[in-house]
Amino acid sequence: MAVAFSPSSTVTACALRGGASLLGSCFLVLRSRRAGRLQSAVTTRRSRTWCAVIVGSTAVPEASAEEGRHGRRSSEQLALPPELVDELVEEALVWCSQHGLIVGDKNHPRSGKAPGVGLLHAPFSLLPMSFPKFYWDQALELAPLFNELVDRVSLDGEFLQQTLARTKEVDLFTKRLLDIHSEMMELKKEEEIRLGLTRSDYMVDGETGLLLQVELNTISTSSNGLACGVSELHRNLVRMHERELGLDQASVLGNTAITQHAGALARAWAEYNNPRNGCPVALVYFRAGYSPIDYPSEAEWRARTLIERSSAIKCPSISYHLVGTKKIQQELAKEYVLDRFFDNKGDIKKVRQCFAGLWNLENDSIVMSAIESPELFVLKPQREGGGNNIYGDNLHETLVRLRKDGGNELAAYILMQRIFPPASPCYLVREGKCAKENAVSEFGVFGAYLRNKDKVIINDQCGYLMRTKAAALNEGGVVSGYAFLNSIFLT
Amino acid sequence: MAVAFSPSSTVTACALRGGASLLGSCFLVLRSRRAGRLQSAVTTRRSRTWCAVIVGSTAVPEASAEEGRHGRRSSEQLALPPELVDELVEEALVWCSQHGLIVGDKNHPRSGKAPGVGLLHAPFSLLPMSFPKFYWDQALELAPLFNELVDRVSLDGEFLQQTLARTKEVDLFTKRLLDIHSEMMELKKEEEIRLGLTRSDYMVDGETGLLLQVELNTISTSSNGLACGVSELHRNLVRMHERELGLDQASVLGNTAITQHAGALARAWAEYNNPRNGCPVALVYFRAGYSPIDYPSEAEWRARTLIERSSAIKCPSISYHLVGTKKIQQELAKEYVLDRFFDNKGDIKKVRQCFAGLWNLENDSIVMSAIESPELFVLKPQREGGGNNIYGDNLHETLVRLRKDGGNELAAYILMQRIFPPASPCYLVREGKCAKENAVSEFGVFGAYLRNKDKVIINDQCGYLMRTKAAALNEGGVVSGYAFLNSIFLT
Repeated sequence: MAVAFSPSSTVTACALRGGASLLGSCFLVLRSRRAGRLQSAVTTRRSRTWCAVIVGSTAVPEASAEEGRHGRRSSEQLALPPELVDELVEEALVWCSQHGLIVGDKNHPRSGKAPGVGLLHAPFSLLPMSFPKFYWDQALELAPLFNELVDRVSLDGEFLQQTLARTKEVDLFTKRLLDIHSEMMELKKEEEIRLGLTRSDYMVDGETGLLLQVELNTISTSSNGLACGVSELHRNLVRMHERELGLDQASVLGNTAITQHAGALARAWAEYNNPRNGCPVALVYFRAGYSPIDYPSEAEWRARTLIERSSAIKCPSISYHLVGTKKIQQELAKEYVLDRFFDNKGDIKKVRQCFAGLWNLENDSIVMSAIESPELFVLKPQREGGGNNIYGDNLHETLVRLRKDGGNELAAYILMQRIFPPASPCYLVREGKCAKENAVSEFGVFGAYLRNKDKVIINDQCGYLMRTKAAALNEGGVVSGYAFLNSIFLT
Repeated sequence: MAVAFSPSSTVTACALRGGASLLGSCFLVLRSRRAGRLQSAVTTRRSRTWCAVIVGSTAVPEASAEEGRHGRRSSEQLALPPELVDELVEEALVWCSQHGLIVGDKNHPRSGKAPGVGLLHAPFSLLPMSFPKFYWDQALELAPLFNELVDRVSLDGEFLQQTLARTKEVDLFTKRLLDIHSEMMELKKEEEIRLGLTRSDYMVDGETGLLLQVELNTISTSSNGLACGVSELHRNLVRMHERELGLDQASVLGNTAITQHAGALARAWAEYNNPRNGCPVALVYFRAGYSPIDYPSEAEWRARTLIERSSAIKCPSISYHLVGTKKIQQELAKEYVLDRFFDNKGDIKKVRQCFAGLWNLENDSIVMSAIESPELFVLKPQREGGGNNIYGDNLHETLVRLRKDGGNELAAYILMQRIFPPASPCYLVREGKCAKENAVSEFGVFGAYLRNKDKVIINDQCGYLMRTKAAALNEGGVVSGYAFLNSIFLT
């Protein structure tokens, strides 16, 4: 016997929770489009639902007439009844456990040492984040432009070497990368097939209403799997509680990041394999290598150089990797620099429009402004991976010291305009506990770019990553423990 | 851009592991049907794969000619190279984390108190268990017969009351259930729509080669979700390592337990809802209530009685629940008792053929035999849920004491022939660690039965649960910590 749940069925959701052993208990919810919700559990000892009562046709309070007319625009505006929040949190946590929306528990003794043990749910926002379609469309339009930009800048070896020349003197890690790059330039090494899996991160500036780029990631763009998961989680929660929430699940933006990035890798492999059968290594994907701690010995540098010398497709190549540095981002934001890489004035305008203020520390008037008003700036060292940026008093002190010491160390940093996105109350869940916080969001658009000689095979956006954090916090990484995964509720 | 992986593609598997934060690292494997396997990770610091090298066309050792001709019959016969075992274990653990094949970690302080925290992978056998199609077919044929048997016995209130009359005197829990049953008999309460979600558990007896029933579960049949998951895990591992393992993924038996049980519940709800719209509660599913600890106060007994009195479909009703008791199982195994419930002699024969030796303790010659040879028997108290059975020296001592004390307490137990399934070496994984053990397996076939008055709407098998445990152990529950989830590799 096989049962299919068609959309036309009155049974809109049927979830037999299989993870019985999670709590020594599981229960079942059956709903009817006409009527249903879980009326009550007969006995609810804490977290142990004894049996579930399935409702045939009980009336459920709907969204008010006012809300009904306009549609609830923004999930975070909702003031939800506490019992509903508890129910949503429990459902969401079980969903996470059963659908792989989990991360390692840093408090577990074997965390990071063995997979499959010491797991807990990924931190998430209970409901999706409302987000104007206008910004989403803008970010989608920018995605292929940034992909193309990365490729073009990567081909300009002189530009990379010159722009990073001073950084190289003070940052040993950047120096090692540039040394490999130099070696490839000397060898006149050409990458015929070039694959970029990117993510361009943005925030909406509350004051100007502009979508501003935070950074452009060209190596090891992470969280695509988790981002897809949280979008599914939100769709599911909104579908199961359509009436109580007054939200339409169709507005929860789906996410295809994981499929599209995997697809781009497969396609790159196919491009390599077909004409050149017989070569052993087709493609190297880096999930690390962007941080000095990934190179504990010379062996890793030798490996990186060996890979770069090889005929394999690198994701990314050393050039693509270098294009993603903050110093290059700052240089590209200078007036007229984009003209070197784009012909189309319209494209240049679109890209420049999303650039935040970016400066090097040789610009003393900006350094003085930042010392005076540190709250308006972010000081960014040449490091990837969250948790390295400097804010507020710390920024003030660092700049005062750097100016006093003078010399090269200034070249290890860039200054960036601090972006203040509009804040709104959100239900945020971490370690099984839900708190209502005034929160802001950062969102990234994944991209894929594949080129074989003159032929652009893929140049596309590939879904998104929405991260939400308490407005009072500076940093925002999910993995580094600051932010909560979120999805987009298009308005 | 959307990419679909069609079976005809040379890329047979493409997994971009999204759980980056699980280990602070993730990696990618692309394979080609013609060639591929992951050749090597350039740097493998423990559990941190730095980058993955994707192979275009390197030859991989295939299964030997001998194995090739006959096909490897049995995964547990494999003596796998240790590096391959390590690779399989790591892949399996990541897969579990990302696909909800996880359970609560009993060592975690919040285990059982909150969902979503303190999780670890479910214990599993690394490879599927080879299992002759003969037994599988036999178990499938038995499934609708046992479903029907449960229904027919449930209608014979006198039989239930009389058979359990002595148990009732010594087992307070059974007494409470029987009291509710009596009350329903007095009320002449009829259940027009009857829904059974069952699981019949079997072991193959090594000496006789017979498939023997261990027990028949009629309430809260568990692990359907995990059972489906491990089948998917094995399919995936076998597909990714088809050549090294010399196994065909098509022989890994798929499992539809979760969909079919959910489907049966939905169908029952539909049966109730359509003709009798207006009644609030359509269906009550019990995920607990089979153990005295589920009734900490009179409130739970009142709730159970209230549900039983209601017009809702109960899954299970009190009668169905009682049919699953061990005493009833033992009574049904007596000669001629099945004739009371089946007309067809062929059906009676098929069902009786899978009955193991079952005796009550009033049979003194059997009790004496068990005292003399306790290794050949299992002493089963009237309890559900694993961990209650008595074996070996303990069985000997308990029987000696019960005989000496005499009286009613004997009625709280039944004796069962101990089944010794054939043992074979297996790779078993628990808490992230793999051990090779001599192991035996027990397997259960899920069933669903739905009846509306005279009309049988569903009477079907619904997938399976295969559990493997070290041969030296007595008990075998997955959740209780003894057994490992497994799937069937049909031979």
